[in-house]
Amino acid sequence: VTDTASTDANTAGTAPDALEDALFHPRGIAIVGVPSNPDAERIGSFLGSLLEQGYEERHGLYPVNPKMTEVAGLRCYPTLLDIEEPVDHVISMVPARVVPTLVDQAVEKGIRSIHFFTAGFSETGDPAMVAAERELIGKLTTAGIRAIGPNCMGLYVPSEQIAFMDGFPKEPGEVFLLSQSGANAGDIIHGLARRGVRFSKAVSFGNGADVKAHHLLDYAARDPETKVVAAYMEGVQEGRRFFEALKRCAAVKPTVILKGGIHAAGARAANSHTGSLAGSIQIFEAACRQGGAMRAETMDDLHDLVVTLTTQARHVRGSGVVLVSGGGGYAVLASDAIATAGLDVPPMPRETVEALREFIPVAGTSVNNPIDTNVRGSDEMRRTLEIVARATPTDLVFTNAAWGGGGPWGGATDEPDELPENERIERAEESARRAATMLSELQVETGTPFAAIERTRSYDPISGHAADAYALAAHEQDVAVYPNVARAARAIGLLLRWRSRREGLPELF
Amino acid sequence: VTDTASTDANTAGTAPDALEDALFHPRGIAIVGVPSNPDAERIGSFLGSLLEQGYEERHGLYPVNPKMTEVAGLRCYPTLLDIEEPVDHVISMVPARVVPTLVDQAVEKGIRSIHFFTAGFSETGDPAMVAAERELIGKLTTAGIRAIGPNCMGLYVPSEQIAFMDGFPKEPGEVFLLSQSGANAGDIIHGLARRGVRFSKAVSFGNGADVKAHHLLDYAARDPETKVVAAYMEGVQEGRRFFEALKRCAAVKPTVILKGGIHAAGARAANSHTGSLAGSIQIFEAACRQGGAMRAETMDDLHDLVVTLTTQARHVRGSGVVLVSGGGGYAVLASDAIATAGLDVPPMPRETVEALREFIPVAGTSVNNPIDTNVRGSDEMRRTLEIVARATPTDLVFTNAAWGGGGPWGGATDEPDELPENERIERAEESARRAATMLSELQVETGTPFAAIERTRSYDPISGHAADAYALAAHEQDVAVYPNVARAARAIGLLLRWRSRREGLPELF
Repeated sequence: VTDTASTDANTAGTAPDALEDALFHPRGIAIVGVPSNPDAERIGSFLGSLLEQGYEERHGLYPVNPKMTEVAGLRCYPTLLDIEEPVDHVISMVPARVVPTLVDQAVEKGIRSIHFFTAGFSETGDPAMVAAERELIGKLTTAGIRAIGPNCMGLYVPSEQIAFMDGFPKEPGEVFLLSQSGANAGDIIHGLARRGVRFSKAVSFGNGADVKAHHLLDYAARDPETKVVAAYMEGVQEGRRFFEALKRCAAVKPTVILKGGIHAAGARAANSHTGSLAGSIQIFEAACRQGGAMRAETMDDLHDLVVTLTTQARHVRGSGVVLVSGGGGYAVLASDAIATAGLDVPPMPRETVEALREFIPVAGTSVNNPIDTNVRGSDEMRRTLEIVARATPTDLVFTNAAWGGGGPWGGATDEPDELPENERIERAEESARRAATMLSELQVETGTPFAAIERTRSYDPISGHAADAYALAAHEQDVAVYPNVARAARAIGLLLRWRSRREGLPELF
Repeated sequence: VTDTASTDANTAGTAPDALEDALFHPRGIAIVGVPSNPDAERIGSFLGSLLEQGYEERHGLYPVNPKMTEVAGLRCYPTLLDIEEPVDHVISMVPARVVPTLVDQAVEKGIRSIHFFTAGFSETGDPAMVAAERELIGKLTTAGIRAIGPNCMGLYVPSEQIAFMDGFPKEPGEVFLLSQSGANAGDIIHGLARRGVRFSKAVSFGNGADVKAHHLLDYAARDPETKVVAAYMEGVQEGRRFFEALKRCAAVKPTVILKGGIHAAGARAANSHTGSLAGSIQIFEAACRQGGAMRAETMDDLHDLVVTLTTQARHVRGSGVVLVSGGGGYAVLASDAIATAGLDVPPMPRETVEALREFIPVAGTSVNNPIDTNVRGSDEMRRTLEIVARATPTDLVFTNAAWGGGGPWGGATDEPDELPENERIERAEESARRAATMLSELQVETGTPFAAIERTRSYDPISGHAADAYALAAHEQDVAVYPNVARAARAIGLLLRWRSRREGLPELF
């Protein structure tokens, strides 16, 4: 992308309201170059995803492909210009060589935004295709049309029933995601959806020929539906603008950034993926720090930080973790993992130990953090958790998630074998939801955040269903769930370090 | 444990054959102190687990509890001495204060081994209970009875239909597990079972008052059913004997050890868990190196190393990884993760690139490692994988596991929505199994090992079933499956470094 093109783009559409109207509230979407079988294309089945979300019940959805008159029950048009109704947004699935014709038609039709799933432009490194990309963006910009991509997956706007992959949640949420990679955006949305996170909007923007990270950060900062911002980046375009937008965004909303291409092998991959020059990770790290953002070093970090920021775990007061687990060896490894992340496992004060010993027998247990109990039933577990949550050195309580494979909560394997599987699943799910509710109530009552830790899944599908139900119910009630102790501790450690860098600045949430 | 007690124990029963007979092939098991409802005790439901495995169809299974005459359809005896039939093995669930009486009865009954689930002995640090443990072990040793524990979960011997937790696989396998922690043994067995690993025997030995790690390592080294040995340790008892046994075992079978209690917090937990003095991790690390064992730094390491050692991935020739993925951003992060683990992502030779370009279009793809393709269907994927597996710099091929959420293999989301869920699950599982078989065939044909990488699960239970089916089918056909690229790369890196330390020694497998 040349400076000329991007300056034009900025002139045309930097005001967040304009970006919002053009991109996030399109009335009428045309999919040009739609494949004949919407299920045939596993990547880029935009028609299938929009139908799954129910977009066509809201606004017009117009497949375009001259070889068909109907697809998936919808009328199929020979060209964009054959659609009589208004079209705000076009998804381009045509080959790169057909794009110039499509752009002319888009200008004529008077659309407001276009998303190029089409690849084969600047990311190929071919000078002719770099020039072609520059030219088409220039033409669109002149016409006041915003472009996403090329070489990307485009938009996920659940409140408008727009999605770019199957299986995205239909309910909107509070996380804004921007990503140079469609596959990574999909992994983030699918993976976090299972953990209960929901999104305000997500944009996969690929080569970023027009709409770039800094536009999206500025939009996210002002978007009233967005509380937390997450980003996956490969290269930084227009470095100074990016840094200023990052500062503006991170000043008002917690902003987590994962950078791909940190090693030579990854940088080489990034260059052939989105044409990005990955740049130095040290400079990027410094930009995140100075910009007030959190840097996720891995995809796991990004997932876990978003879960942390969207639950009460974000209010953790300090590094004192109490671990309530069932199983001494588990407690040993967990304590090691907590210490590795730079957090503490403080011994409990005498009055806490005594309060626990009133109902926890000595044999086979430990009550001096980690708390390794064999308490029976959720009443005793609730009592244990409440006592340790109120202890002075406690900033956060780690406890096992409550489904399957042992533990005092009741769950999957409690259900009588003679019941049919679907009933056993329902009961296990119900039990898991009750456990999640208990943690949520304790968070409110004690003012101490909880983190629920998943254990290795039992060799049994019922536990899997219970685990999913637990994760959703917990997150919905503001309780963070993490796959294991090491990841929970690492996310909390990253959050605490970020917060300490912000000292003196206003609270974000 | 005092030296006296342990020396006695050694004198009585170090010969592996004796250990084998006494521990691993018990004809007749009594569970003394069995709870009235076998499902009520979530931890220690030995009766339930033995019934699940079908032990009672093989040998006598005798619940003992004076308060009942029947439990779970079995006759319940008032005391051990009321059982007329021979009993080889006793599981003690009685409180510590009742143990002396039980030991006297066990000696009178002429049993061969006893497992103390009973806790509250030396691990409490109470001198009276330390002395009590020493005394009871002395009495048992004098009578020629081997003891497991106290404070542990005991035996898993699938070929004898013995298990200490619900949901353990019934089929035997080639991995021997010894663990000071029952909870961690359960996590290892459940977690690895889902990944297709099966076990020859597992022993949770807790305080190790009689049977200790060195006895079990010596047994595992000679056990014809065992090919790979895994251990979870908190403290080392009789250091020199342990080190010598470790050397003997690791000289003939790959041996992976996870040590708990590496930080002060973990060491404190280990001390209250099994009474272990955790010792210096530097000394332990040196012992592993000099002993020829692999040290797992985390539970994830242990799982991934066992998967690596039980599949063709163990034959990886060197550090050259080819990554075949669908999704450019995924490829970028994966390349970073591979480099972080010390492995390489070598560019492909020109003839490989040309062979791939014959059928892979330029737009939106990359064929120069990482390979980011949008190939359609399993024929093109097979062709891609075969070409890169035969390329000169390739030591190992990483490829996405084949279920759910996009990708060229076909799978969960391909199935028509109108089918009932169980049929969609069956079809998805079948498709996943076909994909696993393809990798297995390619491993054999090309001589290059493959590693299948799971992606974040889609928000959909069908993908979960398909993932489980894939993992089982892949491992059964000698293909390693890992949860993500970072863990796969780390396991391969650990294996390669271990192998390079063994250079000049005979191949183990």
